[in-house]
Amino acid sequence: MIIVLKSDCTEDQRKEFVAELEDTYGVSVNTWVGAQSTVLGLIGDTACIDIDNIGANEIVESVKRVQEPYKKANRKFHPDDTVVKLPNGLQIGGGTMTLIAGPCSVESEAQITEVAKRVHAAGAQFLRGGAFKPRTSPYAFQGLKAEGLELLNVAKKETGMPIVTELMSVRQIDLFLEAGVDVIQVGARNMQNFDLLRELGHLKTPILLKRGLSGTIEELLMSAEYIMAGGNENVILCERGIRTYETFTRNTLDISAVPILKKISHLPVVVDPSHAGGISWLVEPLAMAAVAAGADGLIIEVHNNPKKALSDGAQSLTPDQFDHVAGRIKEIAPLFGKKL
Amino acid sequence: MIIVLKSDCTEDQRKEFVAELEDTYGVSVNTWVGAQSTVLGLIGDTACIDIDNIGANEIVESVKRVQEPYKKANRKFHPDDTVVKLPNGLQIGGGTMTLIAGPCSVESEAQITEVAKRVHAAGAQFLRGGAFKPRTSPYAFQGLKAEGLELLNVAKKETGMPIVTELMSVRQIDLFLEAGVDVIQVGARNMQNFDLLRELGHLKTPILLKRGLSGTIEELLMSAEYIMAGGNENVILCERGIRTYETFTRNTLDISAVPILKKISHLPVVVDPSHAGGISWLVEPLAMAAVAAGADGLIIEVHNNPKKALSDGAQSLTPDQFDHVAGRIKEIAPLFGKKL
Amino acid sequence: MIIVLKSDCTEDQRKEFVAELEDTYGVSVNTWVGAQSTVLGLIGDTACIDIDNIGANEIVESVKRVQEPYKKANRKFHPDDTVVKLPNGLQIGGGTMTLIAGPCSVESEAQITEVAKRVHAAGAQFLRGGAFKPRTSPYAFQGLKAEGLELLNVAKKETGMPIVTELMSVRQIDLFLEAGVDVIQVGARNMQNFDLLRELGHLKTPILLKRGLSGTIEELLMSAEYIMAGGNENVILCERGIRTYETFTRNTLDISAVPILKKISHLPVVVDPSHAGGISWLVEPLAMAAVAAGADGLIIEVHNNPKKALSDGAQSLTPDQFDHVAGRIKEIAPLFGKKL
Amino acid sequence: MIIVLKSDCTEDQRKEFVAELEDTYGVSVNTWVGAQSTVLGLIGDTACIDIDNIGANEIVESVKRVQEPYKKANRKFHPDDTVVKLPNGLQIGGGTMTLIAGPCSVESEAQITEVAKRVHAAGAQFLRGGAFKPRTSPYAFQGLKAEGLELLNVAKKETGMPIVTELMSVRQIDLFLEAGVDVIQVGARNMQNFDLLRELGHLKTPILLKRGLSGTIEELLMSAEYIMAGGNENVILCERGIRTYETFTRNTLDISAVPILKKISHLPVVVDPSHAGGISWLVEPLAMAAVAAGADGLIIEVHNNPKKALSDGAQSLTPDQFDHVAGRIKEIAPLFGKKL
Repeated sequence: MIIVLKSDCTEDQRKEFVAELEDTYGVSVNTWVGAQSTVLGLIGDTACIDIDNIGANEIVESVKRVQEPYKKANRKFHPDDTVVKLPNGLQIGGGTMTLIAGPCSVESEAQITEVAKRVHAAGAQFLRGGAFKPRTSPYAFQGLKAEGLELLNVAKKETGMPIVTELMSVRQIDLFLEAGVDVIQVGARNMQNFDLLRELGHLKTPILLKRGLSGTIEELLMSAEYIMAGGNENVILCERGIRTYETFTRNTLDISAVPILKKISHLPVVVDPSHAGGISWLVEPLAMAAVAAGADGLIIEVHNNPKKALSDGAQSLTPDQFDHVAGRIKEIAPLFGKKL
Repeated sequence: MIIVLKSDCTEDQRKEFVAELEDTYGVSVNTWVGAQSTVLGLIGDTACIDIDNIGANEIVESVKRVQEPYKKANRKFHPDDTVVKLPNGLQIGGGTMTLIAGPCSVESEAQITEVAKRVHAAGAQFLRGGAFKPRTSPYAFQGLKAEGLELLNVAKKETGMPIVTELMSVRQIDLFLEAGVDVIQVGARNMQNFDLLRELGHLKTPILLKRGLSGTIEELLMSAEYIMAGGNENVILCERGIRTYETFTRNTLDISAVPILKKISHLPVVVDPSHAGGISWLVEPLAMAAVAAGADGLIIEVHNNPKKALSDGAQSLTPDQFDHVAGRIKEIAPLFGKKL
Repeated sequence: MIIVLKSDCTEDQRKEFVAELEDTYGVSVNTWVGAQSTVLGLIGDTACIDIDNIGANEIVESVKRVQEPYKKANRKFHPDDTVVKLPNGLQIGGGTMTLIAGPCSVESEAQITEVAKRVHAAGAQFLRGGAFKPRTSPYAFQGLKAEGLELLNVAKKETGMPIVTELMSVRQIDLFLEAGVDVIQVGARNMQNFDLLRELGHLKTPILLKRGLSGTIEELLMSAEYIMAGGNENVILCERGIRTYETFTRNTLDISAVPILKKISHLPVVVDPSHAGGISWLVEPLAMAAVAAGADGLIIEVHNNPKKALSDGAQSLTPDQFDHVAGRIKEIAPLFGKKL
Repeated sequence: MIIVLKSDCTEDQRKEFVAELEDTYGVSVNTWVGAQSTVLGLIGDTACIDIDNIGANEIVESVKRVQEPYKKANRKFHPDDTVVKLPNGLQIGGGTMTLIAGPCSVESEAQITEVAKRVHAAGAQFLRGGAFKPRTSPYAFQGLKAEGLELLNVAKKETGMPIVTELMSVRQIDLFLEAGVDVIQVGARNMQNFDLLRELGHLKTPILLKRGLSGTIEELLMSAEYIMAGGNENVILCERGIRTYETFTRNTLDISAVPILKKISHLPVVVDPSHAGGISWLVEPLAMAAVAAGADGLIIEVHNNPKKALSDGAQSLTPDQFDHVAGRIKEIAPLFGKKL
């Protein structure tokens, strides 16, 4: 950590501040006195120092981290790719192209099993489907809840596909564990629900962590760090579009986040082209771009009858459309070092 | 709701769609066939219709709401200002200028009581202080938790000031009720923690709802609607800055949100100039701007020793600085129709 | 155009407003009187109506376009792809993958010819290089100006590659024409320099129009429309990243813009992965993503000695790195229907 | 300037780099070798060093400025407020509250003189009005151009009010000088039209420089620096709203920019509440907020018949509304240290 002191800082103030730093954080401090400003360099473990606290000191002009504030999610300390392995032998990361597909919401047994069979036949390895739905409006369909989890299990039995589904509250954890949910999704709006993240850190179930609408890449990794710090290192990062001024799309897919996350972290990265664009005809090109940018997988909304979907119909593919997109993904994945 | 159909939509498709709309939503539909496009107008209660579902239909070009999707928070259906009243006679809204002040985090009995006495003497009516702290890093100070609530109560007893403090999880609700928290704050990162909002709707305690970092004005009102739909109409809205590309400030205070929220909703609106700017010397001008724009109150961070604060020191005022700012607020509030 | 009137609008006000609309804009107006609101539908050529003017009327609740405000750039009125053809037989669009490469700034004859030879050998068809440089700081290197154009011509003679270079002012047009610049680039900061766009509409030289840092997709097309309305229909659109809250990258590449522009417009679309990310190691994955998303070409910064570049060194590839990236592009382009 | 080197940088690489820095920029370099990283501190005039160039070096981890990259606009080197003085004795800055009012576009002699008289009577000291209009659509009204300047002069003669009007191109400079324009406005879309800024630096006419839609506070000051570096130090900064994800308002007024610009620069700062909100009923509260935040003036759109305005009607006040707003400004300005 590099701290630049204000030019009018006295020698006494500086010495007192340095002593405080060494005392409070157990670091050693190098001082370099320049003509216009004085710079302090902190040596030791600074990942846990709150940069805002340092900046609050009246003699501090600015502060800059040299070390990243995340450790367990940091490739520097964990050079090899994390590969998330499921009991049934499936894996996410490690050269596999993972396809997670299914409807936004579980609506009925017929719907979820039909979609599951179709996406399985098309090559998807995981079934997604929302049982608990985070909706902007309290008057919108909120999901089938516990019944939705049961229906997902029916579809899982029929197809053998592990289930990926969103958990919205710490109160649902027991229910999810009993239902045998294979991968727990943390939605974009909960990326910084720290109480929830901390609880998930005590599980062994893999967590698919979505980037928040205004989450930075660093904040996404800090949220992964919350889960990992608790002991659960099976975290899958998900880029799903960020909020910008552009209104043509529902969100702006930050495609750069894929190679960046792969470089600075060792965790697998999947992309959600359905939520990113919010328009069904954008799913294919965005899925292609994600694979080309190095994603380890895709999570795609598929509905047997999008125009009657209880949520997110506008961005859902039909099973026929998914057949085509999955075919394209299979075709191109090898060119980007991935097996499907 | 106005639905524009695609130009290549056939008459049969249109008629089938209209029948579906009438059947599914209980609305009546007016059709206007134009030269280049056909427009449908829905009459009835459309606030609960999911606009995305409509847009998913392959014959739909675009959809536009005429009615706002929020009702209980809507001034159209509730023309008079909501005034949140506390048992001790204090009120928020209704021509009062409310000052909520205190440290970011409760750190010790000495700290919280000292700050409480000072801000009370300066004119603040409410004491703020975090017991449970949402922190980006799992390694940062997370608050004194239950002990923090106790210390807030000590300060409350000494000064008579009601307490405003943040609740991060449904699991803390009972603890907050037992501790007699007077106003429960929902933090920016939880603005769309719908499970939490729903639970708070079953309480009677006033809720101070902060706007999310990327929450739109409409989404803020939809989150208020979640709480109000459950029966708790004591909601106070809080503008605390939004995330934009500008990096000089921690967030960008959206000052326009104040007059807009006052016009389209009847709920009281307070502003947090401390988090908005993230810099202590910005608190005064932003507080002035907020009062001038019509805010019903301010929530300001004050710390007895900002440079040693365990969180958010950079944006905290000293008690002496708060004396000055509170004095200025008293001076100007009457010009904007508020009593302090 | 659909106009929703306020619920308290009287019949007389409405009739007067309808008469005004018909009179001012030569459109015919359909009126549909609903229970809660009245809707007007305008028939005729509404692309030229200023939506803000309509919205200014005190009886108007809101206005919505049905027709896009651009015509010449609109695929609806020009279904076939525009293919920009150069005198030497090269083309942009129409199934070709176009590679434009070269240094950010032309710095010397040795530099530009060396880079030109290397990128030409690697497969680039066009040479880019800045002679006039838009720099944030008045104290930064502003380009070699006229001499830079001469040096580009030297490199063009040696390699046969047409030149793409940025024009910053109407005052440079004659110089650019005399220098025989093959494709004139309009930089992001000039996307809405309307005086410049209008002048370029009178030329025959193809224009590479970069999206502004905060330009919407629609505004980019409106700027293309300025050029095309003047008679110059040889416009190439360029996505180069937009400004968002994310600070890891210089800009956020809006990859969705590629398939959207291809769908709603007939103009060729190229992507600038160098400026989008601002980091050299991001160029390859972003270039891959761009090709996969359907781009017609790429514009990539290459410098013989990036660390001594007078501008934009951080995002420049070395010639060796470009060899690799160009090789990868050749490998994948056929999978996305493009020939190189 | 502080440069952090990568941890794998060798001693030879470091020494070579330090020698290069000293040689190229004439600075002296302090080296501090830490356990995990090496830090270089540059002493001397680093304002002109291109931070991107430094960052391009393969051994550089990151770079941080200590000095601001602007000098002439920097309060550190020019502690006293700049007061822009006009030949007729009027001034902007220096404790005066400046009101600039008038229509978006000059439309006719009757219109501009009527509006001029009314705003003058209400207390405005300057008349604004667009003769050359930057419009997103090539089909929208582009202003009366030279005739508009003549009509502004008619209104100036009748009222004695100096004229503020926008210049869109270097080609209009002579025309503006002949017309005796008192303050030349640079519009938001031209904030980084560097060729234009440079030319304006050679004039003596005061320049009102608007912040771009995605311009940072630092970039606004760098653009002011362009003008000032040429010799014209009569620059007035204008905050007019930035582009964010919020769609309720046309732009998001960044009210924090006012106190920040006043603190870090010595130039006067005015606010445009009309463009910021884009809605006439927001003008009053935003104007109040601007004064309270410390603005030196306001620029407000007033039209005698907003619903028939040829541009920007939705955000224009009527003369009666302006009477009220100007009255309010007079009432509150003294509380914020300004005379009107």
